[in-house]
Amino acid sequence: MKLVPPGSPVVLGIGDDCAIYRPRGSADDLLFTTDMLIEGVHFERATHKAKDTGWKALARGLSDIAAMGGEPRFCLVSLCVPGWADSKWVDGFFEPIVKGPAPLVGGDLSHGNTLACDIVVCGAVPRGTALRRDGARPGDEIWVSGKLGGSALGLEAKKGKAWKRHLHPEPRLELGHFLREKLRATAAMDVSDGLSLDLQRLCLASNAGAQIDQLPVFNGASEEQALHGGEEYELLFTVRRATPVPAVAAGVPLTKIGTITPAVPGSVQYRGSVLEPHGYDHFQTK
Amino acid sequence: MKLVPPGSPVVLGIGDDCAIYRPRGSADDLLFTTDMLIEGVHFERATHKAKDTGWKALARGLSDIAAMGGEPRFCLVSLCVPGWADSKWVDGFFEPIVKGPAPLVGGDLSHGNTLACDIVVCGAVPRGTALRRDGARPGDEIWVSGKLGGSALGLEAKKGKAWKRHLHPEPRLELGHFLREKLRATAAMDVSDGLSLDLQRLCLASNAGAQIDQLPVFNGASEEQALHGGEEYELLFTVRRATPVPAVAAGVPLTKIGTITPAVPGSVQYRGSVLEPHGYDHFQTK
Repeated sequence: MKLVPPGSPVVLGIGDDCAIYRPRGSADDLLFTTDMLIEGVHFERATHKAKDTGWKALARGLSDIAAMGGEPRFCLVSLCVPGWADSKWVDGFFEPIVKGPAPLVGGDLSHGNTLACDIVVCGAVPRGTALRRDGARPGDEIWVSGKLGGSALGLEAKKGKAWKRHLHPEPRLELGHFLREKLRATAAMDVSDGLSLDLQRLCLASNAGAQIDQLPVFNGASEEQALHGGEEYELLFTVRRATPVPAVAAGVPLTKIGTITPAVPGSVQYRGSVLEPHGYDHFQTK
Repeated sequence: MKLVPPGSPVVLGIGDDCAIYRPRGSADDLLFTTDMLIEGVHFERATHKAKDTGWKALARGLSDIAAMGGEPRFCLVSLCVPGWADSKWVDGFFEPIVKGPAPLVGGDLSHGNTLACDIVVCGAVPRGTALRRDGARPGDEIWVSGKLGGSALGLEAKKGKAWKRHLHPEPRLELGHFLREKLRATAAMDVSDGLSLDLQRLCLASNAGAQIDQLPVFNGASEEQALHGGEEYELLFTVRRATPVPAVAAGVPLTKIGTITPAVPGSVQYRGSVLEPHGYDHFQTK
């Protein structure tokens, strides 16, 4: 299905963390990402306070902007409010959004049976410089920020540092800027649905395979959680071989986890075995 | 609450049909509007087919772009899909969107209990030329396109031309372009929540009052439906006194309905009496 006509100012459509739009005559490309947050699917009323829910909605969008190396410009928030959510809840929901780095410029409010939120975040990068999923080449090194598995561990344990991490993820905006401007990463995306699934997506977009040798595992998390756990908000990126990558950037540790290979596109090996993508896919698990 | 910092590329935030963003160095301003469509609130599964629902979602957004005189550039669609909606329904929903004038460049899909859709449409106008709600001045003539009350009549009758109009509204994109470029309208908006409420909003934004003398009523609709019925997708606009306005533009009849006055901001008189705003407000009627 051809959604974007040739000659369109839409540089990149569906299939990456953000769409890319090139405004007429502008020095910037604009990035657009949209994320839904549905009660009972993406959050539970019992465990997520209003401000946790608002923050999570915002963080998901900001993380996509970070993954392309962008700076946030504005956001639009639509909210469907059920009877249980009073005006205090709604105010609490919007608090972290209004305090965030992307001015709230519009949205829509409705009542309804289930709390549902949709957020669009717009970011900007200098023209032609957005980090995409499709730029990795065989021989490139694969890196990841932070430690993996913490969000999945937190969701299971519902306490401690891992739970805090699950509830209050930090989008890697400063790191994304560093990857784009200083490291000139060849590809990048955020780990939102689990490393195994997201790395497969990066490989498919780049028409390559990958080999993973090691993983930075969150303290207390299992290898399974690190490989397949979603909602990490860490950045997965590739650089040309022998690029000098610092051990820490923007306050976040960086770990080399493997190499892009010329194997069958989308195939990933982990310590010599095939790594099946078990991350979260809404329409696989439905 | 100050949402948009001074010096921001956000020219206009919450409160009009669209937000306005000015990309660095661009010849265009970009318009953004977002609209939710919730099962049981904005549409009924029993009466709206999949493609009617998709069209309605798109039409709401396009109508906001039309109201500011914009040309559609792209759209983002998020969809929360309950168990009753199979893949055939989802394909039917997206059909009018993919065929529409705004390429679909991104979105999000989730499962959930209730069908909920959120659409963002981006449009463009030459820099500084967007039609806004706040430009009307006392003495300006008030005009409206088409006939009013048809959508409300259709919703009541569920048959005939009025029902067809309710199910398949036509956003006035070509007319909006004409109002901006040729007529140089001083203010414009679409009649989405009923003339009485929407005109009050235009008057409040423009710090003025209004006096209405006559209305173009849809064949078979009541005066009440024409005054207060929502989902009209017609354009309400103002022009400087004695502007030569054609009887028909872009195939749509235009009717002068009254005059902007220096009365208390937001106060509207209809044939000598106060016109209370009885249009649809989600959080008034909740």
